[in-house]
Amino acid sequence: MPTGLPAAPAAVANDDEGWVWAQIKAEARRDAESEPALASYLYSTILSHSSLERSLSFHLGNKLCSSTLLSTLLYDLFLNAFSSDPSLRSAAVADLRAARERDPACVSYSHCLLNYKGFLACQAHRVAHLLWRQSRRPLALALHSRIADVFAVDIHPAARIGKGILFDHATGMVVGETAVIGNNVSILHHVTLGGTGKVGGDRHPKIGDGVLIGAGATILGNIKIGEGAKVGAGSVVLIDVPPQTTAVGNPARLVGGKETPSKHEDVPGESMDHTSFISEWSDYII
Amino acid sequence: MPTGLPAAPAAVANDDEGWVWAQIKAEARRDAESEPALASYLYSTILSHSSLERSLSFHLGNKLCSSTLLSTLLYDLFLNAFSSDPSLRSAAVADLRAARERDPACVSYSHCLLNYKGFLACQAHRVAHLLWRQSRRPLALALHSRIADVFAVDIHPAARIGKGILFDHATGMVVGETAVIGNNVSILHHVTLGGTGKVGGDRHPKIGDGVLIGAGATILGNIKIGEGAKVGAGSVVLIDVPPQTTAVGNPARLVGGKETPSKHEDVPGESMDHTSFISEWSDYII
Amino acid sequence: MPTGLPAAPAAVANDDEGWVWAQIKAEARRDAESEPALASYLYSTILSHSSLERSLSFHLGNKLCSSTLLSTLLYDLFLNAFSSDPSLRSAAVADLRAARERDPACVSYSHCLLNYKGFLACQAHRVAHLLWRQSRRPLALALHSRIADVFAVDIHPAARIGKGILFDHATGMVVGETAVIGNNVSILHHVTLGGTGKVGGDRHPKIGDGVLIGAGATILGNIKIGEGAKVGAGSVVLIDVPPQTTAVGNPARLVGGKETPSKHEDVPGESMDHTSFISEWSDYII
Amino acid sequence: MPTGLPAAPAAVANDDEGWVWAQIKAEARRDAESEPALASYLYSTILSHSSLERSLSFHLGNKLCSSTLLSTLLYDLFLNAFSSDPSLRSAAVADLRAARERDPACVSYSHCLLNYKGFLACQAHRVAHLLWRQSRRPLALALHSRIADVFAVDIHPAARIGKGILFDHATGMVVGETAVIGNNVSILHHVTLGGTGKVGGDRHPKIGDGVLIGAGATILGNIKIGEGAKVGAGSVVLIDVPPQTTAVGNPARLVGGKETPSKHEDVPGESMDHTSFISEWSDYII
Amino acid sequence: MPTGLPAAPAAVANDDEGWVWAQIKAEARRDAESEPALASYLYSTILSHSSLERSLSFHLGNKLCSSTLLSTLLYDLFLNAFSSDPSLRSAAVADLRAARERDPACVSYSHCLLNYKGFLACQAHRVAHLLWRQSRRPLALALHSRIADVFAVDIHPAARIGKGILFDHATGMVVGETAVIGNNVSILHHVTLGGTGKVGGDRHPKIGDGVLIGAGATILGNIKIGEGAKVGAGSVVLIDVPPQTTAVGNPARLVGGKETPSKHEDVPGESMDHTSFISEWSDYII
Amino acid sequence: MPTGLPAAPAAVANDDEGWVWAQIKAEARRDAESEPALASYLYSTILSHSSLERSLSFHLGNKLCSSTLLSTLLYDLFLNAFSSDPSLRSAAVADLRAARERDPACVSYSHCLLNYKGFLACQAHRVAHLLWRQSRRPLALALHSRIADVFAVDIHPAARIGKGILFDHATGMVVGETAVIGNNVSILHHVTLGGTGKVGGDRHPKIGDGVLIGAGATILGNIKIGEGAKVGAGSVVLIDVPPQTTAVGNPARLVGGKETPSKHEDVPGESMDHTSFISEWSDYII
Repeated sequence: MPTGLPAAPAAVANDDEGWVWAQIKAEARRDAESEPALASYLYSTILSHSSLERSLSFHLGNKLCSSTLLSTLLYDLFLNAFSSDPSLRSAAVADLRAARERDPACVSYSHCLLNYKGFLACQAHRVAHLLWRQSRRPLALALHSRIADVFAVDIHPAARIGKGILFDHATGMVVGETAVIGNNVSILHHVTLGGTGKVGGDRHPKIGDGVLIGAGATILGNIKIGEGAKVGAGSVVLIDVPPQTTAVGNPARLVGGKETPSKHEDVPGESMDHTSFISEWSDYII
Repeated sequence: MPTGLPAAPAAVANDDEGWVWAQIKAEARRDAESEPALASYLYSTILSHSSLERSLSFHLGNKLCSSTLLSTLLYDLFLNAFSSDPSLRSAAVADLRAARERDPACVSYSHCLLNYKGFLACQAHRVAHLLWRQSRRPLALALHSRIADVFAVDIHPAARIGKGILFDHATGMVVGETAVIGNNVSILHHVTLGGTGKVGGDRHPKIGDGVLIGAGATILGNIKIGEGAKVGAGSVVLIDVPPQTTAVGNPARLVGGKETPSKHEDVPGESMDHTSFISEWSDYII
Repeated sequence: MPTGLPAAPAAVANDDEGWVWAQIKAEARRDAESEPALASYLYSTILSHSSLERSLSFHLGNKLCSSTLLSTLLYDLFLNAFSSDPSLRSAAVADLRAARERDPACVSYSHCLLNYKGFLACQAHRVAHLLWRQSRRPLALALHSRIADVFAVDIHPAARIGKGILFDHATGMVVGETAVIGNNVSILHHVTLGGTGKVGGDRHPKIGDGVLIGAGATILGNIKIGEGAKVGAGSVVLIDVPPQTTAVGNPARLVGGKETPSKHEDVPGESMDHTSFISEWSDYII
Repeated sequence: MPTGLPAAPAAVANDDEGWVWAQIKAEARRDAESEPALASYLYSTILSHSSLERSLSFHLGNKLCSSTLLSTLLYDLFLNAFSSDPSLRSAAVADLRAARERDPACVSYSHCLLNYKGFLACQAHRVAHLLWRQSRRPLALALHSRIADVFAVDIHPAARIGKGILFDHATGMVVGETAVIGNNVSILHHVTLGGTGKVGGDRHPKIGDGVLIGAGATILGNIKIGEGAKVGAGSVVLIDVPPQTTAVGNPARLVGGKETPSKHEDVPGESMDHTSFISEWSDYII
Repeated sequence: MPTGLPAAPAAVANDDEGWVWAQIKAEARRDAESEPALASYLYSTILSHSSLERSLSFHLGNKLCSSTLLSTLLYDLFLNAFSSDPSLRSAAVADLRAARERDPACVSYSHCLLNYKGFLACQAHRVAHLLWRQSRRPLALALHSRIADVFAVDIHPAARIGKGILFDHATGMVVGETAVIGNNVSILHHVTLGGTGKVGGDRHPKIGDGVLIGAGATILGNIKIGEGAKVGAGSVVLIDVPPQTTAVGNPARLVGGKETPSKHEDVPGESMDHTSFISEWSDYII
Repeated sequence: MPTGLPAAPAAVANDDEGWVWAQIKAEARRDAESEPALASYLYSTILSHSSLERSLSFHLGNKLCSSTLLSTLLYDLFLNAFSSDPSLRSAAVADLRAARERDPACVSYSHCLLNYKGFLACQAHRVAHLLWRQSRRPLALALHSRIADVFAVDIHPAARIGKGILFDHATGMVVGETAVIGNNVSILHHVTLGGTGKVGGDRHPKIGDGVLIGAGATILGNIKIGEGAKVGAGSVVLIDVPPQTTAVGNPARLVGGKETPSKHEDVPGESMDHTSFISEWSDYII
């Protein structure tokens, strides 16, 4: 079971944040020099800011604003949250690292900061979640709605999400109210962590640390996807998946069989191997 | 088969509309008081308006406008439609009730009115459908396009939709030109009611009253999903599903078997039980 | 295997472009006359422009702009690209024809030009791809990000796409960095042409000429979908699909069996028959 | 003394309004045909509307809106006012005629409707004045502020203004709270009808019917500018000016002398002769 | 000679600021209740903010932003300035009091805060002046340009302005680079404090404490307008004006004569008597 | 009499344009480095552009656009004009030089290009004038209206203006339809070159080369202000002013007397001496 956000020692976290922010500025400076048409954008979003939290607050405020929710209001909201809660910042840094390390298409930290809707939706969600925990629910839900409109990523503000998270591509993700996502998890687009009916209470999946969930997987109900488990693309999962095993198909079955499922690597959420189960599963089919 | 929009007696409908609107105002007033940062938003979208139709027209106009389709034009269009056609208003009220009753994450009517992209897309679609029936097709299609861009909900303006509808989460829904959706239907996100080829004519699914369709289900062709039927998440359905039965899987099979399918509750679209078929279907698999 | 963009003789291409542009203007003029509420929109997007490339550049610039990436900058970028590279224009014309011929819901060329997010995302992608090939990668990625936000269509700028393409509905499409899509291909919404892990290099599908891919299909890895093959809606494909055969299901199997798969029509990407395999596949199931 | 707004018989007024609106549409249609680059603008502001009041409400709403006062709110406000109060419409028509007849640079009614900031500021002021009389003062003052920002025309919402008014060029006009302007008055830019101190009460000028006030004139205090009087450009007037006389200079003197001032034409506000007094006044100076 | 900004004791200033801010909130609350159409505006500009400095920063940021100078950037800039420099806040409070006490048309503090372009331009100028003194001149000049565009008030960022200032109506004011304005000064619209040529250096007027300058007055060159002096509307002043005297006319003369000018009240900038000199000056003229 | 736009040899003009553009870029680069908060603005307006004409077109398009006249349309219009007509570019360069040389507050060319509303209004007017001469009058008038709204500078598109022009501060300028302004003229704010009545035809002032007109001067009728003449601030001029003489006062008189006016320097429009006539005129008055 995911255990929330085990804090790195503050000093280390700060150093890490500083290092990543320095990288981002260096990347943006290099890009601004080589591409004048983009320089204005890079200065407004990154190079004019004195810290990652200001850059991120500015970028999210401008992305998520609407004619009835002004950018200045959202900027203020984000800046207050990121400034006052260091765990939001360290989670953002861990997510930046996750994208950079796990996604071969992620060419730089600034690329993720500016362009990854999964990254941006996740950081905005964390602020919505903070508001939710502070019982500022109408505001949390309004923010939730903007994230769902702008990024097509629909994460209920009550959902608890760890750090070191990669929401790759992200479009179409739906994460329900009582869902929990552990640390170092990678989830592809169109994934649903959904409920099972109209009764309230704890009704959404719990995703263990290090899990990898493939594109289009649908996981429903208050079930556990064990640590380091893998869920294949397009799978429909309605029952617990044991740690370090792989569930594939619709309805999902365990690779290796229900009784003696194959065990794989420890942290597929980091190793990102989507298709090693092919030989067992589909080779004979097509 | 869905039968369109059987009208409640007008007086009753008006009372109902008045009651829901009073609730919405009371909720918004309470939220504005407890959350000053959101008060401006709540006043502009709800509290400054004298009726649900004005509030909804304002909100949709501002959500769906673009630099080339101005909010004033859309506001006018919506207000004319909602003012002149009471069935649009009673359908909106029925949909608000559907969300409030069936979705445990829906904390208030105003929450749905402001934030549910499925609700908003459905109301905007109804106006596009009205335009379509009035042979104002280019305008209907322009509105359709804005709904698809802004909410990632793609409902052809010719599609006929009943009332008491819940499009939950809604992102990624696609509903084709000749599709029909009955009353009291609940459809999750990523659901496709699609066609079968490049020939025109009646080529999309007909969804009976009270149906429940799970996330990511794909239903193709001019087939009937019988009253009170259930389609499991991720299912691919190409053939009729009888009333009160459940189709699951890719390709879909009937729970209980083709010849003697199990019959379940009358109106799953209202009871919202997504996973009761698990014991028959997937328990033995994982 | 797709072979890129075999150029039609320039003169012919120009004539074709002229003919389609004349159609678009005539359609828009007719619609403006019959629907004054839409006339302003039609003049700004189509009727005030002297060429298809100007109209398209204007429309894309206004659709994709944000508060930090101004419409004037994007307009300039698009206009330069479409003006200087005739193959971009001829591909746009081929795509307009594809939508008009293959999608029975496409009532006119102008309908596609203005409203089809798949069409617009594809044209914008082609410009992003041009920037990518010119090593203007940060700009290409910024454009990619806007396309993903605005249209919920996520095509990596390095992906190579032929012409005569129909991305129908398009919401939720994800196409990875090393994917290749041939000519005369039709792809429905929610389709993923994804990678297989965190190692870089050639890791995404190659889609042959004339292929048809149904809604919600997930195709992963550096595999070949042969010319004229068909992938059923909701299928999960991890292994090559031979030419003119149909893969369906999760995991996908070949219709007719692995050893002796049925062969079908030559260019399903054009004939758009999504469901002819039903009799073999799912009839006995429901 | 101006006597407010003596109503023309309603039927006549309506006919007049209809005639002017038909002219405006015909002009706009002609211009849209000859200038496609402007057609979108002309359709959105004029040709898509069914009446002068809708066109004017749309145009003012879009001109005066800001990020905190949305166009939809203002549009609604203007449309309600112009729809419910025919005298606002007949005054607008009289002002359109005044511009067309008195200003040789006014080439058409639509030119005035779209482009004359004096005309637009005056119509918006009339709505602010209506709100003021309805004791909706904060809203009247907010509208006043927007008019002052956008048009640089600062007319206190309590000021009473007749009809057949030409505010030519208009930039920099200031009209105080207790000022009254009669019918058929022409006032050039930079004119001040100001107060005299910090005591409240009736403290601003009363401008009689048919008066002409030249550019940059400053008229201070609760004084009367008699019917048909003329105030020369740049004059500073602190004392009553008798009917049909001309005051010029700083400090102003009466042309012809204080005791036997020259009398001129009856309605200089219509004849617009700014400089006939030259022979008496300044010929001998330069 | 004005002596800059003599600080009130900090505690007193804070109390004063708190009192005025409480008034503003109470006024806005009352207005929001009586006028729902304005409530959204009042919440976004005043009622959602926790301090005057936040309200003012928000309002100025949204008023002065443009498509190339975003509101979030300006908001940040203003908030930093007002938060870090208490003298900016106490000057704003003194200016609010000045408007409330001297202008009979100013019905409340919130009226001034929201709607007085002279007040808003002056506060924004103070921030531009702070930037200028910090040698951030390009930014100061960009802000200056926005103030001139939006409010038609053109105050060079180097100009030094005291507190307790009323810029009444304000449109068209021009204040040059080396101008100095003392405390408790009232200046009407269209007033120029201009230079004399193309040579740099100290070349603009110095306005003493308590001065009153009438509408349209033009004061040129490095001259002194003595403490408590009055300049009549429309006057052109090129030479020093002694304390407590009145200059009127074009060219200006001293009321009472050059040798024995009449002395008047001490602080006309507060008593606001614009026209008491009439009996001496213009009575005999008209 | 002004003689229009005598062309410098093209090669020289181009060199000059290149030199000024290089200065502007260098200034902007320096400012962007020293002030990151402004860098985004400087890149979007100057540093991302390859030529002065592109920078100016972008800046004017974004300044003058509205919700009904989009920036992309205006950008296109400006770019076409500046690209096709080299005299527009050389006039802009001459005006930049005029501001830099004559206005001691003008710290750099980029300062003028970005921030001087007089400069920007003048360049936009030149394009409106080009449209007027091409008989595209409705578009010319729409542009005129935007210039008057945004900059409070109201120059009729038919007015002919030379080059080497400084409109200093510029707010409130009004220039009528048949006015002509020669080369190397400097005009301060609030200056009116107005007509005399409601009869059309040639009715506005003709301003000779090298003239200097002080703030707030009002010049009315088809009169000549001779080459190198000076008009004092606040003057009202209704009759010809001979070359190299100075007219001051309301009504204006010639310094030195009507019969033997004093002659001064040749080109006061360049030397900018506003007040040398003081000794003769007003010394004895105050």
